[in-house]
Amino acid sequence: MQAELTSAPVCQVDLLIAGGIVVTMDGDRRVIADGAIAISDGRIVAVGPTLVIEATHSATERIDATGRIVIPGLINGHTHLPMTLFRGLADDQDLDEWLQHTIFPAEAMNVDEAFVRAGTRLALAELIRGGVTTVCDMYYFEHAVAEEMAGAGLRGLLGQALIDFPAPDSADHNAAMACMERYVDSWQGHALITPAIAPHAPYTVCDDHLLEARRFADRHGCPLVIHLAETRHEVAESRRLKGAAPVEHLAALGVLSEAMVAAHVVWAEEHELDLLQRHGVGIVHNPQSNMKLACGVAPLPSMLQRDLPVGLGTDGSASNNDLSLWEEIDTAAKLHKLISADPKVVTAQEAFEMATIRGARALHLESQVGSLEVGKRADLAVLDMEAINQLPLSSIYSALVYATKASDVRTLVVEGRVVLRDRTLLTLDEAAINAEALTYRHRIVERLGLDSGAAAG
Amino acid sequence: MQAELTSAPVCQVDLLIAGGIVVTMDGDRRVIADGAIAISDGRIVAVGPTLVIEATHSATERIDATGRIVIPGLINGHTHLPMTLFRGLADDQDLDEWLQHTIFPAEAMNVDEAFVRAGTRLALAELIRGGVTTVCDMYYFEHAVAEEMAGAGLRGLLGQALIDFPAPDSADHNAAMACMERYVDSWQGHALITPAIAPHAPYTVCDDHLLEARRFADRHGCPLVIHLAETRHEVAESRRLKGAAPVEHLAALGVLSEAMVAAHVVWAEEHELDLLQRHGVGIVHNPQSNMKLACGVAPLPSMLQRDLPVGLGTDGSASNNDLSLWEEIDTAAKLHKLISADPKVVTAQEAFEMATIRGARALHLESQVGSLEVGKRADLAVLDMEAINQLPLSSIYSALVYATKASDVRTLVVEGRVVLRDRTLLTLDEAAINAEALTYRHRIVERLGLDSGAAAG
Repeated sequence: MQAELTSAPVCQVDLLIAGGIVVTMDGDRRVIADGAIAISDGRIVAVGPTLVIEATHSATERIDATGRIVIPGLINGHTHLPMTLFRGLADDQDLDEWLQHTIFPAEAMNVDEAFVRAGTRLALAELIRGGVTTVCDMYYFEHAVAEEMAGAGLRGLLGQALIDFPAPDSADHNAAMACMERYVDSWQGHALITPAIAPHAPYTVCDDHLLEARRFADRHGCPLVIHLAETRHEVAESRRLKGAAPVEHLAALGVLSEAMVAAHVVWAEEHELDLLQRHGVGIVHNPQSNMKLACGVAPLPSMLQRDLPVGLGTDGSASNNDLSLWEEIDTAAKLHKLISADPKVVTAQEAFEMATIRGARALHLESQVGSLEVGKRADLAVLDMEAINQLPLSSIYSALVYATKASDVRTLVVEGRVVLRDRTLLTLDEAAINAEALTYRHRIVERLGLDSGAAAG
Repeated sequence: MQAELTSAPVCQVDLLIAGGIVVTMDGDRRVIADGAIAISDGRIVAVGPTLVIEATHSATERIDATGRIVIPGLINGHTHLPMTLFRGLADDQDLDEWLQHTIFPAEAMNVDEAFVRAGTRLALAELIRGGVTTVCDMYYFEHAVAEEMAGAGLRGLLGQALIDFPAPDSADHNAAMACMERYVDSWQGHALITPAIAPHAPYTVCDDHLLEARRFADRHGCPLVIHLAETRHEVAESRRLKGAAPVEHLAALGVLSEAMVAAHVVWAEEHELDLLQRHGVGIVHNPQSNMKLACGVAPLPSMLQRDLPVGLGTDGSASNNDLSLWEEIDTAAKLHKLISADPKVVTAQEAFEMATIRGARALHLESQVGSLEVGKRADLAVLDMEAINQLPLSSIYSALVYATKASDVRTLVVEGRVVLRDRTLLTLDEAAINAEALTYRHRIVERLGLDSGAAAG
């Protein structure tokens, strides 16, 4: 066997990651005890035992993952990256009070393109440190988010927000749609960025504009990102004003499609899950945000039983207040056990699938990412497995879901490019990001007329 | 003012921690923007603005906390430290199945004094790295836990378990009580260790032995630690067999007292909270364990409204599966918002109080720890406040509860002794602990006849 391997033709590759426990998340959920991954031109060209891969591949660069775990990069399916600058600005409030008294005024007073860039860079640093390689975002000035993300080397499904009131980046609907057209046209085909149209929610975008967004998505072949059925209040108002719950309403309107990525879907009954399933809608579950804002609990066990494409998201840092997908994985596994009164519900493996391969399906990106398989984009994280909080490691999915933290992420590769090496950010200037965050905090606090000593009181 | 200060007599102290945001958790919940703490003989001798404290104190050692946050050391109110070696051994199972098929056999086959020591050291390393200075534990061979804890320099309220079946450390009840007597006698009066008697639960210890434990606690003036009203099943069985819910039953039996620390208290009705309140029982809420084992949700908002002494615990790593109190604080704040359908419930400050001053009350240690006040033991943590996951810092309690992680803990002081400095453990040999954990994992897996390749599959 050894002789045969060494006599095989040796393939030259860009990058070899070798010696770790490789958690592939492929169709067989193969876990390779001493595995290696060969990468060329941003794609995975081989996955297998280190012995085999090293004998048949010669790499320009080699990362030693001995004593580490290699996983597909995590997928954060719903967030608002620039809002990271609003972290901790207002907590423990009613959703309405929070939006009307703090977030909307804060956005009106602060959000411009420079703010969006600074907030995105801050968020990207946290995401990279936390092992996330793909992000689905929704905000204003999304072209700026796209530029920052492409520059930092992360993968994004990035929705330019559409909302029926004057937005920080466009005065009216026509301006917004013109901007949308330019944005989507200029980013389509990019290796890292998938531009999308993002009507905010059925309660903030009128039916005509929702339909226009659907037609736009069809015409451009781009995804449509939306908030859907997040609160009881939203459902009640939808029933009152439109005679149907939000999912029912979008179905009747003809907006549901397999290009759609719907965040939250907390309040959906079985017949509404039927509708989402029939149309192939991707769903993103945000357990911590839904808890903190007291929105409710999405019917995740039912979604999983139907094998729906459902991923996990952190939501924005103004509501959650961090971008650690590890805590969402952990919370998803625990929350649904509690709610179902059944400790067997949402196993560690199922929770980890939502952060990887099922999350890729939720973003309709499963042909590109979500698992470590030949032909997929080379998006992966190398984790410590001997941090004191992980020892002893008895079962791999249990360790990943219940014990591993963002701080255990050591190295991150996206599209074959190393963006974090041994905990050092290679594509972002962390000191500059920190200084910028501080400057913005002072400005935000001052403009909102908040106590500038709030940090100390 | 300056002149007056410098002409004041200078007091010589052992340790000065200066320049950080000091979150005192004192009666006024004072937060000092640029504060300092002077420590002598293990106690806090001064707290105030850095300018004032530095002008009036000369220290042998000085820790610069500029740009950092100084908090009272966290209090982990309920855990089973040695079980850290069982981390991830069995998840996503029914509580009964988990206990009968994995935990009890694993304990019978593995738990001896050496195991307890190794598991405790592993746990202590994680606790110290996570900012915990006081721990309430319950397990077997508790004298060994006490020795390891005193050696590592952490504070413990340590309950030697009493249970009505043969335990790893005593063949029968008489042997157990003799051992209890020796244990409590030898540790009482220790600066760090408060020995306690720990009847496991009302369903595993008969009424006679519960009463004997109460008399033992009275006679020795030591705390009594117990699991109480953790599951619906426990309550139903208690009603069936004893005609009363567990809290009611203990009250009628005369076991409730202000020496008691009751873990969980998930299933307690208002009249049972009355009973606990009347007797001054300390309560420890374990939100993540209760979620993962699908036990239910403790009536925390009601407990807080009554101003009960209720703290937070991680429970053992076999059930949770980590010892990060930060995640319990975060989860406590979020979970009760969800369950109450009210985002104003359990504010960040209230959640942080449970991990500090209210947690100290739960362990009846509030005269010693839980806040940074003159006369209290010098137990404190110095945290980063410019980690990428914390920026920007808008509100101190929000940052502590919703954004700070165990990985943000930089330095830890217990009883005036630095046990963690700039993330380096000073009282434990981390490499030896890691190696030992690995050895035990192999042994546990082998003895249980589990797949030894479980870590990779």
